Amino acid sequence: MKELIAALPVGRVLTDPDVTESYARDRTFLRPGKALGVVLAQSRDDVVTTMRWATEHRVPVVPRGAGTGLAGAATAMDGSVVLSLHRMTSILDLSPDDEVAVVEPGVITADLDRAAREHGLMYAPDPSSYEISTIGGNLATNAGGLRCVKYGVTRDSALGLEVVLADGRVLETGRRTMKGVTGYDLTGLFVGSEGTLGVITKATVRLRRAPAEVATVAAEFSSLRDAAAAVSAITAAGCQPSLLELMDRTTLKAIDDWKNIGLDPGTQAMLIAQSDASDSQRAAARMAELCDANGASFTALSGSPEEAAELVGVRRLAYQAKERLGQCLVEDVCVPRSALPEMISAVEAAAARHDVMIATVAHAGDGNLHPVFVFERGLEEPPPQVWAAADEVFREALALGGTLTGEHGVGLLKRRWLALESGPVATEIQHGIKRVFDPLNILNPGKAI
Amino acid sequence: MKELIAALPVGRVLTDPDVTESYARDRTFLRPGKALGVVLAQSRDDVVTTMRWATEHRVPVVPRGAGTGLAGAATAMDGSVVLSLHRMTSILDLSPDDEVAVVEPGVITADLDRAAREHGLMYAPDPSSYEISTIGGNLATNAGGLRCVKYGVTRDSALGLEVVLADGRVLETGRRTMKGVTGYDLTGLFVGSEGTLGVITKATVRLRRAPAEVATVAAEFSSLRDAAAAVSAITAAGCQPSLLELMDRTTLKAIDDWKNIGLDPGTQAMLIAQSDASDSQRAAARMAELCDANGASFTALSGSPEEAAELVGVRRLAYQAKERLGQCLVEDVCVPRSALPEMISAVEAAAARHDVMIATVAHAGDGNLHPVFVFERGLEEPPPQVWAAADEVFREALALGGTLTGEHGVGLLKRRWLALESGPVATEIQHGIKRVFDPLNILNPGKAI
Repeated sequence: MKELIAALPVGRVLTDPDVTESYARDRTFLRPGKALGVVLAQSRDDVVTTMRWATEHRVPVVPRGAGTGLAGAATAMDGSVVLSLHRMTSILDLSPDDEVAVVEPGVITADLDRAAREHGLMYAPDPSSYEISTIGGNLATNAGGLRCVKYGVTRDSALGLEVVLADGRVLETGRRTMKGVTGYDLTGLFVGSEGTLGVITKATVRLRRAPAEVATVAAEFSSLRDAAAAVSAITAAGCQPSLLELMDRTTLKAIDDWKNIGLDPGTQAMLIAQSDASDSQRAAARMAELCDANGASFTALSGSPEEAAELVGVRRLAYQAKERLGQCLVEDVCVPRSALPEMISAVEAAAARHDVMIATVAHAGDGNLHPVFVFERGLEEPPPQVWAAADEVFREALALGGTLTGEHGVGLLKRRWLALESGPVATEIQHGIKRVFDPLNILNPGKAI
Repeated sequence: MKELIAALPVGRVLTDPDVTESYARDRTFLRPGKALGVVLAQSRDDVVTTMRWATEHRVPVVPRGAGTGLAGAATAMDGSVVLSLHRMTSILDLSPDDEVAVVEPGVITADLDRAAREHGLMYAPDPSSYEISTIGGNLATNAGGLRCVKYGVTRDSALGLEVVLADGRVLETGRRTMKGVTGYDLTGLFVGSEGTLGVITKATVRLRRAPAEVATVAAEFSSLRDAAAAVSAITAAGCQPSLLELMDRTTLKAIDDWKNIGLDPGTQAMLIAQSDASDSQRAAARMAELCDANGASFTALSGSPEEAAELVGVRRLAYQAKERLGQCLVEDVCVPRSALPEMISAVEAAAARHDVMIATVAHAGDGNLHPVFVFERGLEEPPPQVWAAADEVFREALALGGTLTGEHGVGLLKRRWLALESGPVATEIQHGIKRVFDPLNILNPGKAI
């Protein structure tokens, strides 16, 4: 560590265990190992220096953005060095003509979105954490979000990357253009690789035209399945919502207890749907009709941006509200759209069978559910009945043709189910790819694959 | 070969050189080597058998769809076996609820699109060749097309693949869901890999809602740069066209000579713009205005689907029309959107300086140009002045922040410029990845990377 400290500019390395501990964990309950220290990188050169040193001394490195991950990918292990990119916060270029931005990895997601909006553009990917998470972290996990249903995930906005490899070499991938097929898609390989293949030090991302107007529908239902049926109807009718979010009663209750949103006693589910199309009012009215036709007890439509922001703001509180109830195991299954009602029933059944509190929100338009398993504070890890219920939920998602993780990633949390989805050939290939980039296995070892 | 013939069902292998020759080339001028034979695969098992045999005997295999490629990726080499997938033409599943189809690789692209439209959906990627090219070939090259400007390239519609690896093992990648981040993005790695990593035997692709209406603008300009300026204005105004195509006079003249479209003597360029938004008429009217404001000599707007199909049909004739003029070297540079006018000037300058006929069409909304270098029939390859002009065009594209290939791929044709774009680290990594999948280098050796 003395050598690393000497090789970096003054003040880049933290070694006081009281301070480093907060850099060693993400948003999960997982307890980190004891890291040797934390590098607060401020430039690509800092990252190169750190990786060269790590290669020389075979020290595991855990790259890290803001630590808002929900799968344990940024959890430090014993004897590792945490490499935090959160101080690399420059927006290096923002070109309205090319609809492209070039950013450092520590840029807060919402900050880039705001910068783009000054030019009538937006940065589309918006994980719920987007006010605190970084672009680098979003890229490393291929983060999703609320607007995915129309604009796709982080991968769909990533054009090119600068990456520092395990041995300190610098790799450039991708391009600044809208299209390009020179060589294999290395950009796509890094996106979602959870820091196991390299450290992203710069990204060229695509911006999109910001919508001129939005119209928003909020609908309450006395049954969760009715709400899910409304989701299917909205998709089938071709309404093309720019946001289609579902919250169950447990989630709504947690938000209501905290923020007093005036929750009706009979409300079992709420749907928030938004259209940002040029005929957003008409599209929203159609979505409201479909909610009514599927048994909504209450439906409201608004063309006001302020009301829309408020409603979506309620949804963005969901995770924090649930953290008030206890410790959380946040899950992230994604099923084919048509299987959403069935998946929701399976979650309800698992909660009842194992007597576990599960609060579910869903990016419903994508078939992506977040069942949050709430358990007692103070426990080191979820009790057996929570794991049993989670196991049931995972297996049911796979049985329905779905996946273990729609947008949060595998990290450490989902490794024990990974083989159920990936199979032996894919697993072998993935480890082969890992060896090409990181033959010494020092980059976030044990995560993702 | 006897062993391979015996291992496959009767009739799967062609060895008569007169017959195999037509399977050994693509749409380029490149002369293929002498293949040992052609396998006409009808099932995954045929592919597995072929690859096991090829691994055992170290025989290079050239996977192939319909042979409509424009970069030489499907050009056979001496002593190779061509593995054609064009007989695997089943649409195995088409789910309107999930907006997903599962297809064999030999399905003709436009056939899938038509099948989807029966359910109010579409398969968005539409390379100009889409009436004759296959989904497998489109995946292998990450084909683009006219609708890319709104709906993205083939990659953006590929959810999951079944792939036979070099040694005959079967790998499944990806998923059926809209989102998913389990493991590295192997689907993305295969898309655009030009048959060098594995043979795609099944694909799960995303369908999209078919637009209810389209409005189309055709505008003629007396200067190509004016047309390019109109493109920039349309993008900057946020019109979000679903198609934005540019043709230069040489292209128009070739089409006119063939199909008599009544080309005006003063027309130097034509722009075709389309909107399929719910307010398509309004969007098209705005695009027409912007054409007028940028010096269009003639502008027509139509809401009729028949007229739209006719206009777009004219554009789709471009390549065939040019083939009537001579042999073609079809290029495919892509530049940041704002650099389109500059790139067009560079192409015109290169044509003048080297006294070469270049006919340019562009997916203008994406900054993707196809300068087609026309040269004399009967020549074995383009004469030196064509290569010199092409070299200038490539270097200028890179200097403008662009790429050598937006959608056609590297194949054999662009290999000599590859290092200019990729750099040594990316090249080494790509060869490392190739070795993970194909350690004996039998899958389409010498292509793509």
